[in-house]
Order: sequence, then structure tokens, then C-alpha cells
Amino acid sequence: MKRTVLKFGGTSVANLERIARVADIVAARQAEAGGLAVVVSAMSGTTNQLVDWARGAAGEDLRGEAFDDEYDVVVASGEQVTSGLLALALRRRGLKARSWLGWQLALKTDDAHGKARIMGFEGEDFVRSVDSGEIAVVAGFQGVDDYGRVSTLGRGGSDTSAVAVAAALKADLCDIYTDVDGVYTTDPRIVAKARRLEKISYEEMLELASLGAKVLQTRSVELAMNHRVPVRVLSSFEGAVPAPGAGTLVCDEDQIVEKQVVSGVAYSRDEAKFTLIGVEDHPGVAAVIFGELADAGVNVDMIVQASAKSEGRQNIVFTAPDRDAPHARQVLEKAREKIGYENLLVARDVAKVSVIGVGMRSHAGVAKTMFEALSAKGINIQVISTSEIKISVLIDASYTELAVRALHTAYGLDAD
Amino acid sequence: MKRTVLKFGGTSVANLERIARVADIVAARQAEAGGLAVVVSAMSGTTNQLVDWARGAAGEDLRGEAFDDEYDVVVASGEQVTSGLLALALRRRGLKARSWLGWQLALKTDDAHGKARIMGFEGEDFVRSVDSGEIAVVAGFQGVDDYGRVSTLGRGGSDTSAVAVAAALKADLCDIYTDVDGVYTTDPRIVAKARRLEKISYEEMLELASLGAKVLQTRSVELAMNHRVPVRVLSSFEGAVPAPGAGTLVCDEDQIVEKQVVSGVAYSRDEAKFTLIGVEDHPGVAAVIFGELADAGVNVDMIVQASAKSEGRQNIVFTAPDRDAPHARQVLEKAREKIGYENLLVARDVAKVSVIGVGMRSHAGVAKTMFEALSAKGINIQVISTSEIKISVLIDASYTELAVRALHTAYGLDAD
Repeated sequence: MKRTVLKFGGTSVANLERIARVADIVAARQAEAGGLAVVVSAMSGTTNQLVDWARGAAGEDLRGEAFDDEYDVVVASGEQVTSGLLALALRRRGLKARSWLGWQLALKTDDAHGKARIMGFEGEDFVRSVDSGEIAVVAGFQGVDDYGRVSTLGRGGSDTSAVAVAAALKADLCDIYTDVDGVYTTDPRIVAKARRLEKISYEEMLELASLGAKVLQTRSVELAMNHRVPVRVLSSFEGAVPAPGAGTLVCDEDQIVEKQVVSGVAYSRDEAKFTLIGVEDHPGVAAVIFGELADAGVNVDMIVQASAKSEGRQNIVFTAPDRDAPHARQVLEKAREKIGYENLLVARDVAKVSVIGVGMRSHAGVAKTMFEALSAKGINIQVISTSEIKISVLIDASYTELAVRALHTAYGLDAD
Repeated sequence: MKRTVLKFGGTSVANLERIARVADIVAARQAEAGGLAVVVSAMSGTTNQLVDWARGAAGEDLRGEAFDDEYDVVVASGEQVTSGLLALALRRRGLKARSWLGWQLALKTDDAHGKARIMGFEGEDFVRSVDSGEIAVVAGFQGVDDYGRVSTLGRGGSDTSAVAVAAALKADLCDIYTDVDGVYTTDPRIVAKARRLEKISYEEMLELASLGAKVLQTRSVELAMNHRVPVRVLSSFEGAVPAPGAGTLVCDEDQIVEKQVVSGVAYSRDEAKFTLIGVEDHPGVAAVIFGELADAGVNVDMIVQASAKSEGRQNIVFTAPDRDAPHARQVLEKAREKIGYENLLVARDVAKVSVIGVGMRSHAGVAKTMFEALSAKGINIQVISTSEIKISVLIDASYTELAVRALHTAYGLDAD
């Protein structure tokens, strides 16, 4: 039996008119699908209101783990409302439908409230209900922990709910309806010639998602990859039934016939560069530095250990999110004696530009193309970091657009 | 161990400032109570908004049982929000507290969604938690049916939640905080000399509640009577810890030492009088009339079968809520042949005035006092109906205030 999962975000269910439009899409999709589950976010704006109330009740100073379980109780109510409303709108159209809340699904999570991870989802009753022809309207973003308390999956968590539901249903397709019509080779606001990708591999999407392309929550891509759930990113503002080839399919690498060496160019401006000058050169010093930062919750990204200077001292360069920069500086200044360094420099006017592609694995010269293209535009590379399917460079932030456009052209990604 | 239940309505938790005020009251009450449970309604206005959305999604025409389960999913979210917020506000004050939703309590109801009745509530985990010193913040108005679906208890249902929680806890007291400071001998807006009752019996409160005194939901009084839960009605706008003798205690008749013959005078303007003229006088005709009305959901109150006319025909008079009058008229006109009557008169400018008191059981002449007092003011009685502890009369609506004042004086209820 063909089973399909559809997911609609907060702007798609922002009011009764939009919910009616979603109900029309679901009704149209019902015809082609055997079993259908629909995952909804809260009305856009609702979650912010609920978060404000929770913070107001708890007090700004008192945020933290001791409050997160009740924060989740408050915030999860938004998706409860939209799931009920969409079920009503579907019944109005003569369809069989019912809502499912996190605890009714028994979508089990850990107890890291506010940012819980899905631990398991069997959903036997749920699968049976979907197979009976009843449309399941699932409240996204929420689950239940081992103690029977409400949990939420963090911002964008409804994407992850949708993939978890698709995995439990062994769905043929998980369609994520958003306000963009797919995943692009790069940000179309910067590169007019950016192209929509028909397909992208899980691995590439994961790199894109974690690099700040806000189309899908990173965890949803991880979960889709682990369970081999085909995920399609679609616009909710086009026709009810997607045209063939619409959107972008996130799928297994094997399903992509024409592999590009580089599939996309991503960038992030939320970067800060830290340079520790004259660090004592002895074993364990890196463990001390990055241990202190990890304990303080600072997420370190690129790390470069520069060539040793005289007198057994060296420089260590790393990047972290710019929003964490003041906090990271405090941590490092406090630990100055423990680490043993001469000077600390923090540059906040930097950006990270990356090229991503599974084709890199089998192609030489990908890095060379990148460096030549940047050099031709006179862009200086401050830090380089690579993974199997990604090359990232740190540059002066003012060159971001120039670099992205140059790389998009250099790798032959420009639309005709 | 002394266990106490506090209940706060929608105006008491209407915003963060009011919730903070409630948290202060709870903190003050915590000191005197061993175990404490607090039941909350939704923020005032929220429930109306949610109801509007649910009706908008389902369509006005399509209300009814086929939609009520999802209506409940939507509407129950309001109490989820306030229970989480109050738990946060209590923790901010350094108190141990957690929220409990209907399904977490396992407050079992029937599946009459939108107006469900509580079927059972054991709450072993809940009682254990309260006894451990953790303040239980209970989302009122909601339960869960046998199918694991969310149910709601109807308007005012949070009162019933509070009494059910108090029964499960075998609480010493269930304090209902409202916007009035107790139950009065009659409506103080009509009779300036109305007095607050220190105590009232369950039976009397039940008559008052069903007669339209909107202090407590009728079912909450029934439940309190069945489980012998002492319920106190208090103002939430006075001191945090109630002064001795504050509010009105609803309790067992045996606990009331000085019994008045009549405890209160109630009235209702939501009345319509139906007169069926020339009804065929044969067995079973009343069953046909009131069967048709019951099937149509019309709640018939007073019934009088007037003296038989000639030719084997009679008149039948009854009352029903005025809001149901157009519908009831349609039902009766449609069933005209089936019933067999000559004419139908509907009077909508009528009101019901009642005197209530457990003392009536042992006192003669109570009705005589009523009829004399009304007669002295020139008020004509259209219909009379009595129960063991109540006498009701139907009069011209324009005499309502005059009648209430006259009866309040006649039974010696006026304050000094």
C-alpha cells in the first residue's frame, strides 16, 4: 500500500483561510495516496507568543533545565490547536480524519526538554489507523518522555516529526511543504542564476542544513538518512498536486544518476574567528582549550593549528558562531593561565563559504578550482577546512556575495 | 495529612500578572496545607477564541457529534497553557510544582465530547505526588475517554475537575476562587439587602446552580454531594489566606446548625411558556408531546396538565429555555397531527422565581407565605411547580425584580 506523509509549516496554517487551503491540498493528495498522514506546525506567531509567556512566568533569570519540562507543556499546545483544526476542516470536506498528539502517538523522546531527541516510535495503532483510510493529522514538534511528560523537539522540530512518522509508516514519500519551491544550488537572493536541484543526497543536504540553509531541520535529515525516507521539499503556494519533477527530492546518493562534482555553494555569516597566539606547545593543550569551550556550551567549528613559532610556542585558530563570541572570549580569558597563551585575537567580520558535493569523493582538483576562483577575485582565504564531501573557507565577510557568485560560476552551477 | 484543593477561574489567570498573583496565593496557602492541588481554567477569552476557530474550521452548519472530539482537542489546549504557566510561576518562587493534564491524571470521562461526564478518577500517581509535597497544577475542564481521546467537561467544567481532584485526594477542603465573595441569599444586583450565606447545603446549592446562579457548575455540586467534598466559594481579589468565616461553605446539611426555612430566592429570565390548547385527552398523548421535544434536545422544565375541557379535550402547559423556543415551536408544529391539538400559544415574556430551603421539609405554610407575598404585590402566578426543597412560580417577566424583593423580605432574608 502506498503511504505518503505531508508536512505543513507555521505560515501554511497561520489562520483559518490557510488551514482551509491546506485541507484542499490534503483532499487532492488523498486521491493518489493509499494511506495519508499530515504533520502540522503551530500557527506562525503562536509559538513565539507561548515562549514569551513561559519566559515571563518563569522569569528571565530562571530559564534553564529546571523549567524546561513546563516550558514544553505550554509551547506544545500550539500544534495541538492546528492538528484539531485541520482534522475539523478535513471532516468538513467529507473526509475521514483525526488528530494525533505526541502522547497519543507515543512518540518517545529523551527528557532533554525544549530540544528533545526522538528515541523510538513504533506507532502500531497509528499505522493501523492510517491503513484503514483515516487521514492522520499529527501535531508536530512534540513527543512524550519516559516519565509521561510532554517534550518538544526544538525549532524546526515538526520536520523531524514528519520524517519519524514517515519512517514508522515506511512511507514512499515525505513531502515537506514550505514557502520555497525546493533546494537551490545556492541562495537565489545572492545569485540570480541559482538553480533548483531536482535531487540532492542526504549527505549533501545534511551539510547544507548544518551550514545554515534553513529549509530543513538538521535532525530531520539525519533521521531520513538513517531510515532511508525519501523527503521532498515543495512550495505550498503552487498547485495542490505537485507537477512531476516539482520541488527537490532528498534521497539516497544511488538514486541520483547525473552526479555533479559540486551540488551547491553555501555560506554563513554567523562566524567569529579566534586566534590564540603563543600557546605553549605541549601535549594536551588543545584538550584544555576545547574542553573549556565545550563545557561552556560553545560550538567550535573549524580548527587550525598553525606552524610552531620559536621557543616551543604556537598559534591556534578556530571558529565559533558569532553569537557565542562574547561568551567564548570570557571563557578563554578566564582560562588564560590554565591554557598558557600570550594573546587572544577575536575577528567577528568573517564569513564561511563552502562547496558541497558527493562527487568530490571521486574527483581530484575540486579544491584547486575553489582556490583559483577566489584568488582570481582577490579574495584572501583565512582558514580552510575540509570533509569528505565539503570544502569550507573562512574569508572577510565583505567578500561573501562575491565569493559565492564566483564559486557558483566556477563549478558550472549557473542556470542557462 | 491535610490536603487542600484550590481552583482559579479564567479571569484569575487572564494574563501573566494575574497568574503571578495566583502563584502568591498558592504560596501562602502552601504553608497551611500538607498537600496542595491547584486547578486552573484557561485565560479568560482564550476558550472563546478556540471555540470560534473550531467552528470556523468545521463550518457553522456542520457542528454536532461528528466533530466534537476534535473540538475538544482544540479547546482543551487553553488549560494546558495556564497549567504550565502557573507551574513555572510557582517554581520561580522556589516551590516544587508540576502541571497535570487530563490524560496524565487519567481523569476518565465518557465520550460525550464537549460535555463529557467524569466516569472515574483513581489518580494513584497523582495522590502520591501531592503527598510528596509537590504542588499539583491541574489543567481543569479536561479528561480522557476510553479511546484515549481528549474530552472536555462543558462550560464551567473546571469546577467539576476541582471537585473530582478533591474527591480523589480525600481533601479536607475544595476552595473555588471566583470573582464573587460567596453565595448570596439572592442576586445582590436586585436586592441590596441580600446576605452572603456562611454555609449552604449541597441540595440547596444544586437547586440554586440549576436555577441559573452561575457560581458553580451543577455537576460539580452533584459530585461534591456524592463524595461529601466540602466546597468553599471565595473571592480571589481578597487576602491570600482567607479570613475565618470568609466565603460560603457548601457542605452536608448536618453541618448547618441554624437552618433557615428558606435559604435563598432565585430567578431565571431564560424561560418560555408553551400552551397546547385542545389536546385530545387519551392515554399516551403526554408521552408523544414530550418524547418529540426530548428527541429534539429541548429541555422541558415545569409541566401542568390543566383541567379538561368539553369533548374529551384538555390544555397542556409547559416551560422550556427561551433560547430553545423557536426550535420547540417548529417541533410542535411539525408534530401537530401526531399529537392532535387545536392551537399552540408561546409566551416568551415570562420568568421563573423560586424559593429554596431544606427547612421546607419540616415546615408547613412555606407555599402560603410565597403566594401571599406575591398576591400582596399584585403579581399573577401562571404556573406552579414544587420539589421537596423548592417552590417555583412562573410570572410575567416585568415583575421579576419586584417578586424577588418581596419574597426575600417575606422569608426574613433581608440583612439588618
